[in-house]
Amino acid sequence: MPTSLPRKDLFDLPEGVIYLDGNSLGPLPIGTAERAAEVIEAEWGCELIRAWNSAGWMDLPRRVGDRIAGLIGAPAGSVATGDTLSIKVYQALAASLRMRPDRRVILSDSGNFPSDLYMAQGLIGTIDKGYELRTPAPEDVADAITEDVAVVMLTHVDYRSGRMHDMAEITRRAHAAGAVMIWDLAHSAGAVPVDIAGSNAEFAVGCSYKYLNGGPGAPAFIYARPDIVESIEPALSGWLGHEAPFAMEPGYRPAMSTERLRVGTPSVVQLAMLDRALDVWDGVDMADLRDASVALSELFIAEVEARCPALTLASPRDPQQRGSQVSFAFAQGYAAMQALVARGVIGDFRAPDIMRFGFTPLYLDAGDVRRAAEILEDVIGQELWRDPAYQTRSRVT
Amino acid sequence: MPTSLPRKDLFDLPEGVIYLDGNSLGPLPIGTAERAAEVIEAEWGCELIRAWNSAGWMDLPRRVGDRIAGLIGAPAGSVATGDTLSIKVYQALAASLRMRPDRRVILSDSGNFPSDLYMAQGLIGTIDKGYELRTPAPEDVADAITEDVAVVMLTHVDYRSGRMHDMAEITRRAHAAGAVMIWDLAHSAGAVPVDIAGSNAEFAVGCSYKYLNGGPGAPAFIYARPDIVESIEPALSGWLGHEAPFAMEPGYRPAMSTERLRVGTPSVVQLAMLDRALDVWDGVDMADLRDASVALSELFIAEVEARCPALTLASPRDPQQRGSQVSFAFAQGYAAMQALVARGVIGDFRAPDIMRFGFTPLYLDAGDVRRAAEILEDVIGQELWRDPAYQTRSRVT
Repeated sequence: MPTSLPRKDLFDLPEGVIYLDGNSLGPLPIGTAERAAEVIEAEWGCELIRAWNSAGWMDLPRRVGDRIAGLIGAPAGSVATGDTLSIKVYQALAASLRMRPDRRVILSDSGNFPSDLYMAQGLIGTIDKGYELRTPAPEDVADAITEDVAVVMLTHVDYRSGRMHDMAEITRRAHAAGAVMIWDLAHSAGAVPVDIAGSNAEFAVGCSYKYLNGGPGAPAFIYARPDIVESIEPALSGWLGHEAPFAMEPGYRPAMSTERLRVGTPSVVQLAMLDRALDVWDGVDMADLRDASVALSELFIAEVEARCPALTLASPRDPQQRGSQVSFAFAQGYAAMQALVARGVIGDFRAPDIMRFGFTPLYLDAGDVRRAAEILEDVIGQELWRDPAYQTRSRVT
Repeated sequence: MPTSLPRKDLFDLPEGVIYLDGNSLGPLPIGTAERAAEVIEAEWGCELIRAWNSAGWMDLPRRVGDRIAGLIGAPAGSVATGDTLSIKVYQALAASLRMRPDRRVILSDSGNFPSDLYMAQGLIGTIDKGYELRTPAPEDVADAITEDVAVVMLTHVDYRSGRMHDMAEITRRAHAAGAVMIWDLAHSAGAVPVDIAGSNAEFAVGCSYKYLNGGPGAPAFIYARPDIVESIEPALSGWLGHEAPFAMEPGYRPAMSTERLRVGTPSVVQLAMLDRALDVWDGVDMADLRDASVALSELFIAEVEARCPALTLASPRDPQQRGSQVSFAFAQGYAAMQALVARGVIGDFRAPDIMRFGFTPLYLDAGDVRRAAEILEDVIGQELWRDPAYQTRSRVT
């Protein structure tokens, strides 16, 4: 089974670095800086306000949305881009609650990314009508979909463990119980094959700075199932989601498309950078990518378990139940990750004790993975993490 | 009275253009493209995920907020940046309603920017407890602040007419009636002196791509009065507003500062561009800027009224009641503006009949204004707007 795709030359990776953190911030695709310079100097600088038309800025969110749609099994026109993932979670949740006015439960799981849970908490406080957020363990969530659940909101691939939910089956069970389904694809889009339309879920959300390599703060996206779009009542009813934004009407009238999930003025420079970054996906077959990703992560697990008995696999052992990342638990994980990063192997740490490694076959191969495991063996076996320099926690970990 | 400030060389303006649309999208400050390239290539490209710490990305929103604070009369630490202005309006409105749980009226005015009104409508629909949005005419709003009003939300300078509300007086009346006050500074920040702390308003919001020249899609900002920050219950309770985002706690616990009004991952590239763009304000006295802006707009009004009798002033004649823009009503305004733009004088059009011109003494002087009026005279007097090429409306006007 191939462990890489011939794409490494499409990225500008620093010398001496093995980058296993594309699940947090993807690396720089070549041409991105040039595209940003073009937007800034030729479009903004020379065209000024006219660039909204002449450089196509107004349609850029839709065009980028269509490209993301192609990576998550969604039809063209069904994905809106902009804002941050937290905002898109709020939009999907608020719309879902309005679709089930007689129910009062938001069901998620305890492994969900905290911001998704926080946004649900903020929405519940804002509406203040006795809504409840339930967060059973990930393995118990399917059985927790009772008939009082308005909406099930889950992250497809767990940010800490890499555990992957069965999207089709959980969506089926949500619908059987009369609930709306929202999938957060933060760790799925560009990492594993996703068939969001086939799942029949009402909403999906995601970010573009991880496996889609859009850069720090790249815009988020939201998918809405085409047959429900015209019934969605947007909570964040901004002017660019209006059917006629420049008519400057006093009343909100939502666009008759997924564009109603746009809010305010898009971050044009970052959207254009994302647009350029998405070029690396041209011609990539997601099934091939998945095969290579599984091969890389299986290799890494085997190498680490052979070399580092102090580390405990914290991801599912069955690759079919994992996304594109592998996590190991280690009590000194924070310091160990700092020591590893200092040696050029960049993964990341998630509290309380998770060392997290992402495998992206677009720019990694088996040689990188073996070398990363060797360096990890040094860090753990020689207890390099005891260096006091690696103990102090920075704000971002 | 001086009509310009010695700053023109800090902008990269195209040859042959007189730019009177800084009230919509400010022009490119020099150094911005270089700063973006540095963030993309040296920080993202080389540092990768480490740049959140090593390049200071995590603190960038706060640092930029402090610089904006200095331009609106706010203390350091009181301004959070990120998202879009529409999102910041929603945050301020939702927080205000929770501060006045027994009241059910949002008061704005009919001249407010539509997206502000739309966001209020979306919030009202989401909460669904009988809230009402009232929008009297701008001149009637002060008398409409009755004791059932929870929050008064106004744009300081009217986007269409340039009419400026009396911030101190309306805030005083809002507080006398027990209402919360929100000011939208979209057309004020960087355009007129603002003393938001002195006004005692609870919230202010604004965007940075107009007079602050941050570029297309530059992030928005929100000010909260320091003494109320710790009582704000954020509706959009994203992880980066959490007191300890990387603790990954299951429950939202707001930051004990204005940072609680942050939501998701900031658009780092656009924030860094804005940071660089704010350099042009170093050493600018807002009183000097205001004097020059008034002188430029008075000159423009005098020239246009002398040269173009078909145009009717749609801004207040008293400069103390205007912001930094001047609007004229003309039935063929859309086509006339297209014809004017084709001749290198860039203003913009707002439905139904408003030709809008912004005066920003940082990069405009009296010669530019006289020349713009001469070209406008040609366009109107010779009916150049009759050219069919100028009649077709594009999506962005």
